[in-house]
Amino acid sequence: MKDIIIVGAGLAGSVHAILMAKKGYNVKVFERRPDLRNVELKGGRSINLALSTRGLKALEPAGVKEEIESICIPMYGRKMHDIKGNLTFQSYGKEDEAINSVSRGDLNKRLLLNATEYKNVSFFFNHKCEDIDLKTNTAHFIDEHNNRVSHTADYIFGTDGAFSAVRLRMMKTDRFDFSQTYLGHGYKEILLPANEDGTHKLEKNALHIWPRGQYMLIALPNFDGSYTCTLFFPYEGEPSFNSLQTPEAVNDFFKSTFPDFYELMPDLADEYFKNPTASLVTVKCNPWNHGNKTLIMGDAAHAIVPFYGQGMNASFEDCSVFYEMLEANDDDMEKTIVEFAAKRKPDGDAIAQLALDNYIEMRDLVADESFLLRKKIENKIYEKHPEKWMPLYSQVTFSHIPYSVAYETGQKQKRIMDKIMSQPDIKEKWDSQEVEQQILNALDH
Amino acid sequence: MKDIIIVGAGLAGSVHAILMAKKGYNVKVFERRPDLRNVELKGGRSINLALSTRGLKALEPAGVKEEIESICIPMYGRKMHDIKGNLTFQSYGKEDEAINSVSRGDLNKRLLLNATEYKNVSFFFNHKCEDIDLKTNTAHFIDEHNNRVSHTADYIFGTDGAFSAVRLRMMKTDRFDFSQTYLGHGYKEILLPANEDGTHKLEKNALHIWPRGQYMLIALPNFDGSYTCTLFFPYEGEPSFNSLQTPEAVNDFFKSTFPDFYELMPDLADEYFKNPTASLVTVKCNPWNHGNKTLIMGDAAHAIVPFYGQGMNASFEDCSVFYEMLEANDDDMEKTIVEFAAKRKPDGDAIAQLALDNYIEMRDLVADESFLLRKKIENKIYEKHPEKWMPLYSQVTFSHIPYSVAYETGQKQKRIMDKIMSQPDIKEKWDSQEVEQQILNALDH
Repeated sequence: MKDIIIVGAGLAGSVHAILMAKKGYNVKVFERRPDLRNVELKGGRSINLALSTRGLKALEPAGVKEEIESICIPMYGRKMHDIKGNLTFQSYGKEDEAINSVSRGDLNKRLLLNATEYKNVSFFFNHKCEDIDLKTNTAHFIDEHNNRVSHTADYIFGTDGAFSAVRLRMMKTDRFDFSQTYLGHGYKEILLPANEDGTHKLEKNALHIWPRGQYMLIALPNFDGSYTCTLFFPYEGEPSFNSLQTPEAVNDFFKSTFPDFYELMPDLADEYFKNPTASLVTVKCNPWNHGNKTLIMGDAAHAIVPFYGQGMNASFEDCSVFYEMLEANDDDMEKTIVEFAAKRKPDGDAIAQLALDNYIEMRDLVADESFLLRKKIENKIYEKHPEKWMPLYSQVTFSHIPYSVAYETGQKQKRIMDKIMSQPDIKEKWDSQEVEQQILNALDH
Repeated sequence: MKDIIIVGAGLAGSVHAILMAKKGYNVKVFERRPDLRNVELKGGRSINLALSTRGLKALEPAGVKEEIESICIPMYGRKMHDIKGNLTFQSYGKEDEAINSVSRGDLNKRLLLNATEYKNVSFFFNHKCEDIDLKTNTAHFIDEHNNRVSHTADYIFGTDGAFSAVRLRMMKTDRFDFSQTYLGHGYKEILLPANEDGTHKLEKNALHIWPRGQYMLIALPNFDGSYTCTLFFPYEGEPSFNSLQTPEAVNDFFKSTFPDFYELMPDLADEYFKNPTASLVTVKCNPWNHGNKTLIMGDAAHAIVPFYGQGMNASFEDCSVFYEMLEANDDDMEKTIVEFAAKRKPDGDAIAQLALDNYIEMRDLVADESFLLRKKIENKIYEKHPEKWMPLYSQVTFSHIPYSVAYETGQKQKRIMDKIMSQPDIKEKWDSQEVEQQILNALDH
């Protein structure tokens, strides 16, 4: 059987390793960081992600879906906290539809342990990829003893993240389009601890948002009762990371801006200054393949901002789409590498744009009355005519509709709803037969 | 006096070296390629560029303007060749305004020789920049003996072109925006030799264009009577570089598409297959500085496609803008590095967009009747009201108006002219008082 090198044992790399092992390939996985399998992970302190329908689908053929679901906390909707501490709840989808809070570290560790079960998978940790020879399909690494080691394989997959070394080599080939674009906003994590009895200080089964127009705070539940909270905030201006330089400034800002959070949170300023400020990047490139032997997947091909909760899900979906395509192509790997790169690229672009758009929605629109009415109308149509109208959020989060199709449908829906909402008496008549008919008519055009 | 490292002894690097030497800095210039000063350049065989007003301005303080003008052939306008061989001439500007055909190699060599005159400039050829340490301002090179050598300076300037090593290091720092975007079209050079008596086969003082809608051929005159011609052509489709695979296909295509050129050109297919097909890239990034010690300039900061003839001119203008800014800042280098990067970036973006837009104009619109009428109207207004209306081409090519301002003015002019041209009887009344007044009124809004 043929040899595969996977560069990067993160989330996408681990799942891809399992799926390729199931296909019988000899899989070598190289990872820059130490072996996560031996690390005792501290609950709560890690980054949280929201696993949803697309991500779960890839875990099924990988045989890990149930295990991973057991470490997830379902969140059935957004709980909005206004400046007075008033709460509003907005479901993400239908009654049983949820996105799942999961610790990145725990998830990665369990995927790696599952991959270890396959005899035809071997791991090389503390191996930093230095370069790839695209002609010979050889990957060069620096190992933990600072030695240079090289491995050659039939196929190389780069799942080495937003700053991919595999992609960096591809970037130096002719006609490779590439962009990395940072937001003017960054983020900082803040851990809201559990109550003394280990219970949660906020409603457990929700994603909490403190939308404040130009910025926001969010909170995702952890199993130990804590919440991983994240402040998304401008780097410059007033207020911004730059303007909050003292404990007093931080406390004053949180007290007046997120008062209910401030009351719950001990040692806020300490936590604020202890944690780094991190940046938010969107990476796009084309093509994702080099010939029919090398392919980048996951963040290496399409790093996106986190506002749709789709970064990991998009990466996992890469794995399941690739796996299904390989099956459909009767295990013709070379054909699949080329076909996947071409077919999946528009979906990467679409989710990148959707994620950027959703920052505006999360930090601003969710607190807007007209926006909430719009959602109410959409949900009504969805309930009555599910075959004609699935809200964009549901398409992205709870379906397997390709992102690029969801994006186009969402654009069409937006045009229709903009017109519906522009009617001066929409507040009064939103629930009427007339409005419903207007929407159905518009859909037929 | 302080030390400066300049990475890249191309066009921008040479001029910047001279200007910084004049300012009294100790300048070390490192170049990947061999010493161009010792190379006997073959006339005609090299790439041609069009030096215009912005470029010439930088050569003045560098003390090389007259020398460089002596190796230029002025081109006063475009000479369009239609498919039947009919010729049309379109002036670039006012009577004495021209762009200047010059050999890239000759120009670079003379700039280097001039820089050599300064005792405080030293050159290091065959030095490939491997990396930059942005903290210590140290540049690492591999020299001709394959040795690793390092040099530290107070300031480092990266003028190392579209694939800049200095920029590659900056790209790995946080919040550095970068994009490289290739056109789906490439180019191939074809040398049209002189007549046997050394005279030119086409009119000498013009830039020749064979516009053919989706693609074009252009020709720039050389001193030895030859022309450097360039086919700008799609990579794929019909016709394309990919579709012309045999001498017969090339000959048939040129014979039917560029018949008058085909008649003049000996051994066309040989020349076609001998020369490589090259790609066309636009590079954008932000910021151009790293702190107040490191700056990229020229193509390293803003590589653009060649369709406005502004790549070199924009790079030279970087040098003169930087030089003037340094003077205005009383030789405060650190302030100037930061100020230049912020102020000049929008101009880089503007000329990148203008250059992309101009491909459409050159290959398609210049053969369009309505487009020519539009230009005629614009020129009339320019002549009668030069203080109110300077055509975009003149702003870009024959003025020092910042590119970003020219771009905005051009957008406004386009909106006005779109409206003027949409009048059904414009062909009849274009020269009327009425149309003139319409334009003047629109300008006041």
